Amino acid sequence: MPRRSGISQDELRRVNLGALLRRVHTDGPTSRAELTTELGLNRSTIGDLTGQLESLGLVSEELPTEETAPLGRRSGRPSLVVSPRSDVAVVAIALDVDRITVALVGLGGVVLDRRTRLHERGSHDVERVVESVSQLTHDLLTQHAPRCCLGVGVSVPGAVRASDGLIRFGPNLGWVDEPFTALLAEELGMPVQSGNDANLGVLAENVRGAAVGVADVAYISGSVGIGGGFLVGGQLLRGVEGYAGEIGHLAVDSGGTTCRCGSVGCWETKVGENQLLTHAGRLPGGGPQAVAEVVDAAAAGEERAIASVEDVASWTGVGLRAVVNVFNPEVIVLGGMLGRVLASRPDLVAERLNSATLISPGGRVDLRVAALGEDSSLVGAAELAFSPLLADPLAVMGEPEAQGHDALAQ
Amino acid sequence: MPRRSGISQDELRRVNLGALLRRVHTDGPTSRAELTTELGLNRSTIGDLTGQLESLGLVSEELPTEETAPLGRRSGRPSLVVSPRSDVAVVAIALDVDRITVALVGLGGVVLDRRTRLHERGSHDVERVVESVSQLTHDLLTQHAPRCCLGVGVSVPGAVRASDGLIRFGPNLGWVDEPFTALLAEELGMPVQSGNDANLGVLAENVRGAAVGVADVAYISGSVGIGGGFLVGGQLLRGVEGYAGEIGHLAVDSGGTTCRCGSVGCWETKVGENQLLTHAGRLPGGGPQAVAEVVDAAAAGEERAIASVEDVASWTGVGLRAVVNVFNPEVIVLGGMLGRVLASRPDLVAERLNSATLISPGGRVDLRVAALGEDSSLVGAAELAFSPLLADPLAVMGEPEAQGHDALAQ
Repeated sequence: MPRRSGISQDELRRVNLGALLRRVHTDGPTSRAELTTELGLNRSTIGDLTGQLESLGLVSEELPTEETAPLGRRSGRPSLVVSPRSDVAVVAIALDVDRITVALVGLGGVVLDRRTRLHERGSHDVERVVESVSQLTHDLLTQHAPRCCLGVGVSVPGAVRASDGLIRFGPNLGWVDEPFTALLAEELGMPVQSGNDANLGVLAENVRGAAVGVADVAYISGSVGIGGGFLVGGQLLRGVEGYAGEIGHLAVDSGGTTCRCGSVGCWETKVGENQLLTHAGRLPGGGPQAVAEVVDAAAAGEERAIASVEDVASWTGVGLRAVVNVFNPEVIVLGGMLGRVLASRPDLVAERLNSATLISPGGRVDLRVAALGEDSSLVGAAELAFSPLLADPLAVMGEPEAQGHDALAQ
Repeated sequence: MPRRSGISQDELRRVNLGALLRRVHTDGPTSRAELTTELGLNRSTIGDLTGQLESLGLVSEELPTEETAPLGRRSGRPSLVVSPRSDVAVVAIALDVDRITVALVGLGGVVLDRRTRLHERGSHDVERVVESVSQLTHDLLTQHAPRCCLGVGVSVPGAVRASDGLIRFGPNLGWVDEPFTALLAEELGMPVQSGNDANLGVLAENVRGAAVGVADVAYISGSVGIGGGFLVGGQLLRGVEGYAGEIGHLAVDSGGTTCRCGSVGCWETKVGENQLLTHAGRLPGGGPQAVAEVVDAAAAGEERAIASVEDVASWTGVGLRAVVNVFNPEVIVLGGMLGRVLASRPDLVAERLNSATLISPGGRVDLRVAALGEDSSLVGAAELAFSPLLADPLAVMGEPEAQGHDALAQ
C-alpha cells in the first residue's frame, strides 16, 4: 500500500511494540522464540520490546510450563513465554434491539464478567440508555476493580459517524443524530468509542472467530435488518464518514415490497427475521428464539417452515451474488439468522449464489457460519476499545520508567 | 491498520526510500526542505535518502531555479530540489474494445511517446494481440531508448487474476482464461503486470486526476459495460483473486431485460453505451464519438436525445445509491460515457441518487467527472508498472555502490 509519509525511529519503535502486543493479545501466550520468527525481528529486539511491554504492565514473562513448552524443545535453555495481562481491561457494550450487554474484557480477550438487561423493542430515550449502560458498567468495575481500565467500546445497530461517534441513524432504537457516545463518555469519565455492529462483527470474526487470518472477508448478519461488515486486504471498510457496508438495501427484487428506506425490493425485505417468521405462519417480533424454532421445525419436516427457510435461503444466495461481484471475498461469514439459515440449507444458498455470479463459476467463495454467535459484536466492541493500545502502547500508557531504548529498533 | 509483523531496520530503509521516491514521482520536483516536512523525517535522513536514490539513478538534485524556489525563501542557502529522472521508464498498454494504445512513460509520469492502433470490435486471437502489442512496444523502445525500462503495465477490460495475470474473463475481446500476461512477458523478455481497467482508472485518478489526495474513492466508468474501481482507506479494493469491483451487475430493475451475465435488470443494461445510442434513435456500436454526438444533440434540444440522456442520467443516479450505501465514498469519479452524462445532467444524477440513499440525505458525496478522460486506464497501467519500484527501490534496482547506510534510518 502506498505510503505518503516516512517512518521515523520513534514510529518504528511504537509500531513494533504494538505488533508484538497485538500478537499476544490475539494468539495468547507465545514464546520469545516464536515471536522472533513470526514478527521477523531479531532476538535482542524481541527481548527489548517484551521488556518494555512488561514495564508498561501489559505483559508478563515466565518460563514455560509443561503445557506451554513446544514439543521436542524441552531440553536446553527454554524460551521465555510472553503472556498478555488480563488485569488490563476494557468495557465492551452491545446495544441490541431487545437488550443491553456489558462485559469487562481483559487484554488477551478474556471475558472477566458480563451483565445483560432486557428491554422492550422500539424507541428508547438516549439519556435513559446512557444511564442504564452506566449502571451496568459501574457495577462491573466496582466488583472486579481491574488494575487498569483503558476505556469503553460500544456496538451500535446503526450508522455511527466516525469523526465523533454520533449515532447518525439507529432505526432499532429510534435514534437519529443522537450524541450517545459523547454523553456516555461524559457520564463515565472514560474514553468511549462506538462502531456499527456489523463492522465490529467482522473484526471479531477475524480476530477470534470464523475468519481468523483471512484478509478479504464479508460478514453479513441478519436479524430484523441486514448488516454488512467488510475486511478489504485486512483493513476494515469504513467509508469517509464511517457509514460503509450498508448492503441490506441492495436491490434484489424490484417487483417486491417497499422497504423502510423508501426503495423497493431491498435485500432485507426478503431475508429479514420477520419475513422468515411470517412466511412460516408465526407472528413477527419473536427474535432469535422464534427463528431457531422455525429452523428446527423445518428440519423436523413442517411444510410451511420448510418453505419459509427455503425462501430465505434462496434470497440469501441471490443477495450474496452482489457481495461476491463487488468484493470477491475469500470467506463470507453469515451471522444471526442468516447463519442459522446457512447451517440449515447450505446447498440452496450456494446454488442460488453460483447460478449467476460473474466470474466464480467454480463457487470458490467459502461460506461459513459465524463462530461467535450472538457475541460477535460484543467481542468486536472490546477489540475497538483495545485498538488504540494495540496501535501505540506508548501513547496510551505513557513512557515507562527510564531505560535504554536505543536497542529496541534493531 | 493492524500489523501482524514488525518492521526491521532494513525494511525501514526500504519503506523510506520508497516513500520519498513516490513523493517526487507523484508531485514532481520537490525541495529537500518540503520533503523533510512532508515525510516527517529529519533533514539528515532526507539527505541520505536522496543521495541513495541519486546513486540508484532515480532522481537528480539541483539548486532551485527562479521558478522552483518557494516565494519568500529566495535569500539564504537554498534547499536542493529533488526531481524524478524520466529516463527511467515503463511501457503502459491499454487494451480497449476498438484499439490498442502503447505509451512510454518516464518516472514522474511523463508520457514520452505513444502509439495507437485501431481494430474492429469483437473477438481477437490472443497471440495476435500479443504480437501487435509487441510490435508497438519495440517501435517505441527503439526510437527512444530510455536509460532503463523497468517493465510493462497493461490495462485489460475484464477480470484479471491477481496471482498470475491470467485474463479470467474479457468479454470485449472474447477472452476466457487467456494467459495473455505470461505470453507477453515471454515475448518481450520483461516483467509484465496486468490489471482491470477500472481498478487502474481509480489509481490514475487518485494519483494524477480528479481524486488526488482522496482516500475513499469510487471510480465508475461506462462504455459498453460498466466497470468499477474502488479505493478504500487509500488502498485498492482487489478481492482475494483480484476480481472485486464488478458493480455493473448490481440489480437495479428486475422488471428489465436479461443481461449478458444471465441476471435480469443489471445496472449496465440501463446505462451502457448502446442503451444511450438506441434510445436516441442511433445505431449501436458507435463508441465514444457517437455518445458525444447524442449528448451534444440533447444540449441542442433534440427531443429523443434529451429523453435518452435523461434516462441514462436517472439510472446512473439509481445505481450510485448502492455505491454510496456500500462504500460511503468521499468522491465518486465518473468516467467514459458516464462522465459525459454527468457533465450534461449533474442535477438529475444527484436528484435520483439522493432520493433514496440511506444516510446521506444532505448529498454529501462529491460527484466528479474523470479528469484523465480516455487516458485514465493507460495512466493507471503506467502506475502499475512503476509500483514495484515505488514500493522498494532497492529490490528493483539492486543496492547502489558501497556507501554508509547507517544514517538512512534516522
